Amino acid sequence: MVRRQTDLIETPAVTTRAECEALDAADPLASLRQAFQLPRNIIYLDGNSLGACPKASLDRLSRAASNEWADGLIGSWNNAGWFELPRKAGEKIAKLIGAPEGSVIVADTISVNLFKLMAAALELRPNRRVVLTDNGNFPSDIYVLQGLLRHLGRGHELRVVAPEEVNAAIDETVAVVTLTDIDYRTSRRHEMASLTAAAHAAGALTVWDLAHSVGVVELDVEGSGVDFAVGCTYKYLNGGPGSPAFLYVAPDLQERVQSPISGWWGHAEPFAFDLSYQPAKGITRMQCGTQPMLSMAALDAALDIWKDVALTQVREKSLRLTGLLASLVARRCGQLGVELIGPTVQGERGGHVSFRYSSAFAVVQALIARGVVGDFRAPDVMRFGPSPLYIRFVDIWDAATRLEEVLSSREYEHPKFNRRRAVT
Amino acid sequence: MVRRQTDLIETPAVTTRAECEALDAADPLASLRQAFQLPRNIIYLDGNSLGACPKASLDRLSRAASNEWADGLIGSWNNAGWFELPRKAGEKIAKLIGAPEGSVIVADTISVNLFKLMAAALELRPNRRVVLTDNGNFPSDIYVLQGLLRHLGRGHELRVVAPEEVNAAIDETVAVVTLTDIDYRTSRRHEMASLTAAAHAAGALTVWDLAHSVGVVELDVEGSGVDFAVGCTYKYLNGGPGSPAFLYVAPDLQERVQSPISGWWGHAEPFAFDLSYQPAKGITRMQCGTQPMLSMAALDAALDIWKDVALTQVREKSLRLTGLLASLVARRCGQLGVELIGPTVQGERGGHVSFRYSSAFAVVQALIARGVVGDFRAPDVMRFGPSPLYIRFVDIWDAATRLEEVLSSREYEHPKFNRRRAVT
Repeated sequence: MVRRQTDLIETPAVTTRAECEALDAADPLASLRQAFQLPRNIIYLDGNSLGACPKASLDRLSRAASNEWADGLIGSWNNAGWFELPRKAGEKIAKLIGAPEGSVIVADTISVNLFKLMAAALELRPNRRVVLTDNGNFPSDIYVLQGLLRHLGRGHELRVVAPEEVNAAIDETVAVVTLTDIDYRTSRRHEMASLTAAAHAAGALTVWDLAHSVGVVELDVEGSGVDFAVGCTYKYLNGGPGSPAFLYVAPDLQERVQSPISGWWGHAEPFAFDLSYQPAKGITRMQCGTQPMLSMAALDAALDIWKDVALTQVREKSLRLTGLLASLVARRCGQLGVELIGPTVQGERGGHVSFRYSSAFAVVQALIARGVVGDFRAPDVMRFGPSPLYIRFVDIWDAATRLEEVLSSREYEHPKFNRRRAVT
Repeated sequence: MVRRQTDLIETPAVTTRAECEALDAADPLASLRQAFQLPRNIIYLDGNSLGACPKASLDRLSRAASNEWADGLIGSWNNAGWFELPRKAGEKIAKLIGAPEGSVIVADTISVNLFKLMAAALELRPNRRVVLTDNGNFPSDIYVLQGLLRHLGRGHELRVVAPEEVNAAIDETVAVVTLTDIDYRTSRRHEMASLTAAAHAAGALTVWDLAHSVGVVELDVEGSGVDFAVGCTYKYLNGGPGSPAFLYVAPDLQERVQSPISGWWGHAEPFAFDLSYQPAKGITRMQCGTQPMLSMAALDAALDIWKDVALTQVREKSLRLTGLLASLVARRCGQLGVELIGPTVQGERGGHVSFRYSSAFAVVQALIARGVVGDFRAPDVMRFGPSPLYIRFVDIWDAATRLEEVLSSREYEHPKFNRRRAVT
């Protein structure tokens, strides 16, 4: 494993809340918190699941609805730039993932985008029959792969290995290696550049899912030689609930791929209404249907927050926040049975940190009742994703304190914390 | 052609604006106009392209952003019912298309939904190689078909015939007949029930695109025996720009089909995070990824307008509005070279009415400058889709007057009306 700059970021050796206050006072990102409309008396450590609401998104959404839709009506496709928004928002995301101009577009969902890119990638390797992934991939991505291969019916094999076995499993039967770079449970990071190089050395292509990394980790898809990528905009990018996803296609592949779902937004001349599909040039061809503009507008405004933010600082603060939480929990809750899972080396961890505990579901509910929002992932994982844009070091201190209280009081054993709901 | 009740609806024999005022005074739907936030001094006859903004959608959107997202954060997936919205909105649409409960879901775009349903339908007819459609289908639907068949690579033929030849072209080589029931240019309606019966008699399945009919025409997908359908929510349903589309699967097919795009929202237990895809029961399995909730919320509120509206009255008023426009234009602009295209029999027309004119593009621009919004469809079509929910008979009178003025003055010849833009 290559030693990274981020491995050297130290976990603050903190023993008092006052020390956290001092860390916040010295935080170069501290003022960004003002850009968010945060609920009172809540410590929100679920920014990896649904990001908080930027004030600019509220304003933009109100304008998009009242001025652009209600007043501007159909003319807003031109006059308010709706038609350009997927590309415009894509350029903003490109800067966050190290992608060149014209290689990212915002559209559809991760599932749909992964389907499009996987189908396109498999077409580029018609004589290979293996798709390689790992069991740390987000389950829905695996469902998409299973569905695509079943639907193709060409005898492809989906090879699912353990994350640490991916490198060794790459061979010349593999058409595509597809992975989520940060494990949604353990926060384990893959070595994107080296795995991509290994795939290329074997003649395979790569499709990366950046859902859990974009906006919290420094990414360099171009420098890493990534062929294709998809990602999520409602987590660390704060685009709003279910905001449209994005996709990346490396420039040298853009004219060689075709989306299996070829709709008018990907047509070279969508308003010529010709009966024959002609793919647009570049990344635009990966679009298909009309996108949800209200959600898109909220996202576009949220992306402007990043204009003056250095991702290096975001990553540093993120590691300090999760490192602090890991060390406080180890010190104060370790003897109560809570166990850190995932990487212990700083640079190998993504933006969240997770713990195992037998009654994880109930503990997460009890914590929510005390105003600390993290989430539960089956079967026994408590997960905390503090966004460096709006979470403070004192929040981490307070969250750890309340976790200790919930555990030592055993209040989580109350039946009301054990009722499962639709979405957990 | 079966004679329908709607064929008997008379075009009002109107010669003065006062007569239009009288028609408005007697209109049982007149009060619905108050439910919309309409721009001042604009006659909006493009409800078939982007519906006007319901006041309830503005309120709901504001609540969804401020209360549900900003304050409720991740908890709103349960507490604000986000996770249920696609099904809830689907039930509201089911009532508008004559579909039974549990057979419609709101998700993704028409392109993606058409792709899903066509792939699923073709799997049910593995030994047939022909997909039949017509050249009056919306071009993007044809692009989706071309893309799907190319991507499948199994030697399917896309047979594209003229609308009036569809019935004769159905034979036992046809796997799926897929049509848009109302032609986006001519407004010609297909006989949904008889074409579906003909398809079934030949052993084929049907996939209908209801984009141009839902919310303006009475539909009975169940009674017509339709197998699959998709549709649009941002036209006559007023869901907002690019609001998510819907899809319908007949109850007897729901357990037999599988979506080619199998994501977690279509999984039997999405939050079990199992690594093996298990389709949910019923229509839910046709979902894949996380939906854009802000756009979905605006749509859900817009659908409540229909609660107390009889579609029979909507269809009657629609035919009277388009019939009035057709007769006024014939009388006042016929000698200026404007020609009605599409059906002349009332019941055969959809919700819009179109005219051919050599300088259609420029005329539409000049009309917009005079506050009458219709749209242009290449190469020479002017199209007007007056929504019966918020358009008055006086609006039609005034629009016809201004069209006559634009044509007789030849003001449309000014270069400023001849500049093409991205979206026309």
